[in-house]
Amino acid sequence: MMRTLYLTQDGQLHTNLTADDLFRAAQDPEGLLWVDLDREPLDSCEPILKDIFGFHPLAVDDALRQTHVPKVDDWGYYIFLVFYSILYQSSDEEPIITKEVDVFLGKHYLVTYHKQPIFSIENIWETCQRDTRSLSKGAAHLLYQLIDDLIANYMTVVDDISEEIDLIEDQVFSNPQQETLERIFALKRNLIHLRRLLVPQREVLYKLSRVDFQVIEAEFGVFFRDVYDHIVRLNDIIESLRDLTGSALDMYLSVVNNRMNEVMKTLTIITTLFMPLAFITGFFGMNFFQATSPLGAWTGQLALAITIMLIVFVPVGMYLWMRRRAWM
Amino acid sequence: MMRTLYLTQDGQLHTNLTADDLFRAAQDPEGLLWVDLDREPLDSCEPILKDIFGFHPLAVDDALRQTHVPKVDDWGYYIFLVFYSILYQSSDEEPIITKEVDVFLGKHYLVTYHKQPIFSIENIWETCQRDTRSLSKGAAHLLYQLIDDLIANYMTVVDDISEEIDLIEDQVFSNPQQETLERIFALKRNLIHLRRLLVPQREVLYKLSRVDFQVIEAEFGVFFRDVYDHIVRLNDIIESLRDLTGSALDMYLSVVNNRMNEVMKTLTIITTLFMPLAFITGFFGMNFFQATSPLGAWTGQLALAITIMLIVFVPVGMYLWMRRRAWM
Amino acid sequence: MMRTLYLTQDGQLHTNLTADDLFRAAQDPEGLLWVDLDREPLDSCEPILKDIFGFHPLAVDDALRQTHVPKVDDWGYYIFLVFYSILYQSSDEEPIITKEVDVFLGKHYLVTYHKQPIFSIENIWETCQRDTRSLSKGAAHLLYQLIDDLIANYMTVVDDISEEIDLIEDQVFSNPQQETLERIFALKRNLIHLRRLLVPQREVLYKLSRVDFQVIEAEFGVFFRDVYDHIVRLNDIIESLRDLTGSALDMYLSVVNNRMNEVMKTLTIITTLFMPLAFITGFFGMNFFQATSPLGAWTGQLALAITIMLIVFVPVGMYLWMRRRAWM
Amino acid sequence: MMRTLYLTQDGQLHTNLTADDLFRAAQDPEGLLWVDLDREPLDSCEPILKDIFGFHPLAVDDALRQTHVPKVDDWGYYIFLVFYSILYQSSDEEPIITKEVDVFLGKHYLVTYHKQPIFSIENIWETCQRDTRSLSKGAAHLLYQLIDDLIANYMTVVDDISEEIDLIEDQVFSNPQQETLERIFALKRNLIHLRRLLVPQREVLYKLSRVDFQVIEAEFGVFFRDVYDHIVRLNDIIESLRDLTGSALDMYLSVVNNRMNEVMKTLTIITTLFMPLAFITGFFGMNFFQATSPLGAWTGQLALAITIMLIVFVPVGMYLWMRRRAWM
Amino acid sequence: MMRTLYLTQDGQLHTNLTADDLFRAAQDPEGLLWVDLDREPLDSCEPILKDIFGFHPLAVDDALRQTHVPKVDDWGYYIFLVFYSILYQSSDEEPIITKEVDVFLGKHYLVTYHKQPIFSIENIWETCQRDTRSLSKGAAHLLYQLIDDLIANYMTVVDDISEEIDLIEDQVFSNPQQETLERIFALKRNLIHLRRLLVPQREVLYKLSRVDFQVIEAEFGVFFRDVYDHIVRLNDIIESLRDLTGSALDMYLSVVNNRMNEVMKTLTIITTLFMPLAFITGFFGMNFFQATSPLGAWTGQLALAITIMLIVFVPVGMYLWMRRRAWM
Repeated sequence: MMRTLYLTQDGQLHTNLTADDLFRAAQDPEGLLWVDLDREPLDSCEPILKDIFGFHPLAVDDALRQTHVPKVDDWGYYIFLVFYSILYQSSDEEPIITKEVDVFLGKHYLVTYHKQPIFSIENIWETCQRDTRSLSKGAAHLLYQLIDDLIANYMTVVDDISEEIDLIEDQVFSNPQQETLERIFALKRNLIHLRRLLVPQREVLYKLSRVDFQVIEAEFGVFFRDVYDHIVRLNDIIESLRDLTGSALDMYLSVVNNRMNEVMKTLTIITTLFMPLAFITGFFGMNFFQATSPLGAWTGQLALAITIMLIVFVPVGMYLWMRRRAWM
Repeated sequence: MMRTLYLTQDGQLHTNLTADDLFRAAQDPEGLLWVDLDREPLDSCEPILKDIFGFHPLAVDDALRQTHVPKVDDWGYYIFLVFYSILYQSSDEEPIITKEVDVFLGKHYLVTYHKQPIFSIENIWETCQRDTRSLSKGAAHLLYQLIDDLIANYMTVVDDISEEIDLIEDQVFSNPQQETLERIFALKRNLIHLRRLLVPQREVLYKLSRVDFQVIEAEFGVFFRDVYDHIVRLNDIIESLRDLTGSALDMYLSVVNNRMNEVMKTLTIITTLFMPLAFITGFFGMNFFQATSPLGAWTGQLALAITIMLIVFVPVGMYLWMRRRAWM
Repeated sequence: MMRTLYLTQDGQLHTNLTADDLFRAAQDPEGLLWVDLDREPLDSCEPILKDIFGFHPLAVDDALRQTHVPKVDDWGYYIFLVFYSILYQSSDEEPIITKEVDVFLGKHYLVTYHKQPIFSIENIWETCQRDTRSLSKGAAHLLYQLIDDLIANYMTVVDDISEEIDLIEDQVFSNPQQETLERIFALKRNLIHLRRLLVPQREVLYKLSRVDFQVIEAEFGVFFRDVYDHIVRLNDIIESLRDLTGSALDMYLSVVNNRMNEVMKTLTIITTLFMPLAFITGFFGMNFFQATSPLGAWTGQLALAITIMLIVFVPVGMYLWMRRRAWM
Repeated sequence: MMRTLYLTQDGQLHTNLTADDLFRAAQDPEGLLWVDLDREPLDSCEPILKDIFGFHPLAVDDALRQTHVPKVDDWGYYIFLVFYSILYQSSDEEPIITKEVDVFLGKHYLVTYHKQPIFSIENIWETCQRDTRSLSKGAAHLLYQLIDDLIANYMTVVDDISEEIDLIEDQVFSNPQQETLERIFALKRNLIHLRRLLVPQREVLYKLSRVDFQVIEAEFGVFFRDVYDHIVRLNDIIESLRDLTGSALDMYLSVVNNRMNEVMKTLTIITTLFMPLAFITGFFGMNFFQATSPLGAWTGQLALAITIMLIVFVPVGMYLWMRRRAWM
Repeated sequence: MMRTLYLTQDGQLHTNLTADDLFRAAQDPEGLLWVDLDREPLDSCEPILKDIFGFHPLAVDDALRQTHVPKVDDWGYYIFLVFYSILYQSSDEEPIITKEVDVFLGKHYLVTYHKQPIFSIENIWETCQRDTRSLSKGAAHLLYQLIDDLIANYMTVVDDISEEIDLIEDQVFSNPQQETLERIFALKRNLIHLRRLLVPQREVLYKLSRVDFQVIEAEFGVFFRDVYDHIVRLNDIIESLRDLTGSALDMYLSVVNNRMNEVMKTLTIITTLFMPLAFITGFFGMNFFQATSPLGAWTGQLALAITIMLIVFVPVGMYLWMRRRAWM
């Protein structure tokens, strides 16, 4: 699906241009044109990019086949950028979904191409339709709005993860489970994944804010610098969150270990308390105390009374001794 | 609640200005005006900020809705800053309480806006009332006094945490508990939280001390540089404290593990000492030693004496053997 | 085996030059010559390098004896480079196989020497034969193509390792084995090995992209800069993967520990449940309950019934108590 | 106690100046004056610092109340410095004792103030009395000698800690105790403490060696640079020592764990060897083998012989099986 | 022992100069003189260094008393350097032996002083005797050769340690012993020791390659830069090796833990399997089954058959249950 927004010099907004209109709009240095190729088949994209905008075939090939790394390529009178939109669903197996956004930026046009619907593009598109002021600041400013919205989503993801870590920390002390452990490791992996996504996008924004591109006027550097600062801060927060997940893992292991130790200690104490009893009953179960008369007295009532007292007081004594040594 | 301090050029201090006085005071380039909007409702704040001081609607909106990151925005003849006041109550669930302070700094006025009472503002306000010298050095110096007081509170928090770590270290060796563990992890989280609060404020102070703002004269850079150094040192101390909590956690785990091992070893030794006794009593409890006469001699007094000697000396021998191998 | 590619100024491609042709080609400043010495014996290499190209004997010695560190040596009108080709077979004992590639780069020639077949050289060689455009951009661009292909293989290796880590993470939660552990450590070692290979090659590319070499025109710096960026990114990814293997190891240990704890707990619970039973049966196995009549009643049917009830209900009671304390 | 050293231009050394002499000496731009205020009461210090040397009241207040952070304040024709002397007694509860030294440095005088006796000051004082050459190089050089001596003490402390770590490493393998563990953690804390002391002093020396102070001639920068290098190296060594204590802790835990495992394994093996014996004796203790005649044969001599053989050979067989599996 | 090498301007090599010859040689700006003081007593060294070469008494004192840190001191027309030679014997208690080498470098002479025989000095000395070309490039180049040889030894040590780590990694999986653990920690300590030795030597070479010394011509900077790069790479490799020893320690602990767990599990399973048997035999050992007739039937043949079946099938059942839960 191809859709177009075209703001002429006199402030008129045209949508859904025909091919001819589009060609004229692409050549108009005073207007502002935004073409969004949303899940458009390759065959219909190519002529638009090559014939109408005159992009280099190599750049077009690069854009249409799904590349894998955010980057910025300077082609002189236009630049080609790759960004990644992000979506986070913590309950999923693969919670971080990334969608590639390819952008061609010229002095007075912006061409976006993506194979899946991108929320940020919908968002900015609607804003532009409602209020042409968003378009009137030029193509570079439009790009800035788009990137700013894309990166703002990362912040949302980071906030979600931060909240999940809080939940897990509570869970670790109250009710640590194997699932808690799996969740901690999943968060750790997500944070490593996030950082890996942000680093190349940070590089792209660093270039946008510092390097002189023909199509970006110096005054816009400060906007991209702003988003760059945003990503740097995101990276800092991600590092904090990694510290927190590491801390949560240590907590989990300590708590589980403590619990396990308590269980094992109690069970072992029970076993130990019964050991002397087993000996005493075994002792009076020996055949000495039955067959020959001189030993017969040992099986008398007095002996039984003493035995039962031993059976009662030995475990009690051991229990008190363990108690004093603070084992329980 | 709105309150005002206005030092005229001739050293006279006026408080509680009327709206008209306020408008004149805001325009007076020779005086010094401090307006504090303490939990003032939005509706009454807006006209003051917009109409009297003429701040840009965007800046005012930004100030009145609670933002989340300390920052400095340069609006030319005034700057807008966000700081965070801190309060620490170690016994609480959420021990670190932060309150936002929004500041507008002009050449000769300071406007502070906050939704909760801020101790540092009370503090500086009273000092100014008592002694107008604090006001006479200009708006930038007043801002410096305020920030210095705000950051000094962080130092108090860090000192409190440092003392708590000392207490916990003693507790770890004398009486390690599950609570000790929870306390260690709480301190770790607080330190991560503190660092996250300080990093953006450090950036703000770095900008205040280096970047040229129209409203801050070059000579004041050295003051903000001082507070910046203070935050850098705070960060260093926080890193040391994180090392110390990490060390305390290692200690806790080692000590608890050692204790647990001692208990399990002693219990297992007791069990092991009784094992041969159980065998001996079981051996002479077998029916061989009763029924048929040729084996009857085994149940005689001599056999019993030998048996009892075994029952006494086998555990003693095992005990001595364990002792020699330094198990106890 | 020696093979040659020689593109004359008029775009003619000559292969398999004779020694005389080769000498003329090496002197021709307008053509482009690529000589590949593939597993060629030392005796036949030396005269080519020394007599035809006039390389310094020290440089030739250095090239022909297998050196160990990637580097670049500037000899003025030619430079000498060492790179490492990589091959990864995850199932092998030593999964990372590296092969040295020695390169002499002049203004209009490239000499490659290697003791094992190198896939990247075959690859570029075939491309050049098919399409002389690859040659027509000059010797430095040819070198760039070769290095780019060599480094691209590292990316493949890193991708393979990344996939393996994914597999291992699944395995860790579903079925952790001693082999899983060995695999994690093998991956860790491979990543350390990879990083150690990349660091000096990164330095070489840094020099190629920054330092002025007589034989590389300034315009090619951007190509080598591109490969340099690629290696920097590879290093970042390797760091992420090391974090992930560290995380996988923690996971493995936590899961194995949890499982072991479960087993030990269950077994210890079984043992503990039988302890009171052993005592009860031992108690009624004592000789008191048989020999003398006043105690004879203890062995009556009522006593047996109570005993059996004890034998049934004591373990049930203990089981319920353990259950309530959430031990199972 | 106040004491003075005053070297006049003609090389004469005067000690114990009267108040009048002191005032003249403080004004003499050609001489060199060192005033040491050793545990002098505040009341008698103030007039000396304020009236004789003319220091700013704020600087004097700062000096006389015990501050907590090493620093350097530039007051124009004099600078104020805070340093920390160190003393280490490894056997103490709080082994690192620090004492503050406050220094005022002018072009031709040095004023030191301290509330406890400082070994380094005694040391340099005596050197100066013995040999006036130490004084003749000027006040900045005298300060350098003092700081150099103060920092040299840190090196001694670091050496002591280094030796202690060596001792502990030996102890860990030969005879690990709870005390060893406490010692390791004490060393860890001391090293964190040391680093925290050194960092701000390093900053002070960095400023002394780089920043231009009016009272320090450029040629002395190299001396302070030397002490700065010394502190940087101290920091490196402290990092190494922290690695070594970390390593010692790992060692301790591994060794203690290994020992504990050996003990538990041996005890468990003993228990396990007795389990079948208990079963065998229990089996022949059942009442089947006594009461009814057809089963009576089971209690004959042959059965007993077989039983005793089982009792002997089952544990031997189990022992050999365990041995073959390398459990012992 | 003092020995001398003296290359005159006309290429003549003189050895074993007399004191007078030495004095003339030290003054000859066109020749090259190398004096090696190998374990020479202090009394005979001093006059040579002070009177013949005219070194400053402080520099000579510094050289003759064993100092402890590699460094370079610039004395104008000569520089004083301290380096450390290294020897590694992995089987020793203290495997890393370092020997100090003190060097005075002038424009046309080199004086080396050492209290133990240094292999690198022997090596270069012999090379110089065989081939005067090594001398003819000047004193700075001679120094470069010496340092290069000294640092090359560090590489050998690092290679040895690297091989040892490989051996230990194999051992860890095949046969982990207490000795393996001690070996891992010894390697860790050696690597920390090595790094501590290299850091100050790296600083010395950094200064040699960057800072302008009067006695080193700018063109030699590139040689020292080469050795500097070498040390930087050594440091990188040492970091990798530390990662590998850390990894080997983790492996050791995991493997030993796994083995221990297997042993404990098997032993505990055996114990658990015998628990019900002990109960069954105890049950039928109770006196109920003997004395009174109505219960007598319980000791009949059928009951015995059922009992024996229980004794056989209960452990089999438990074994199968454990098996299904994958405990074995």
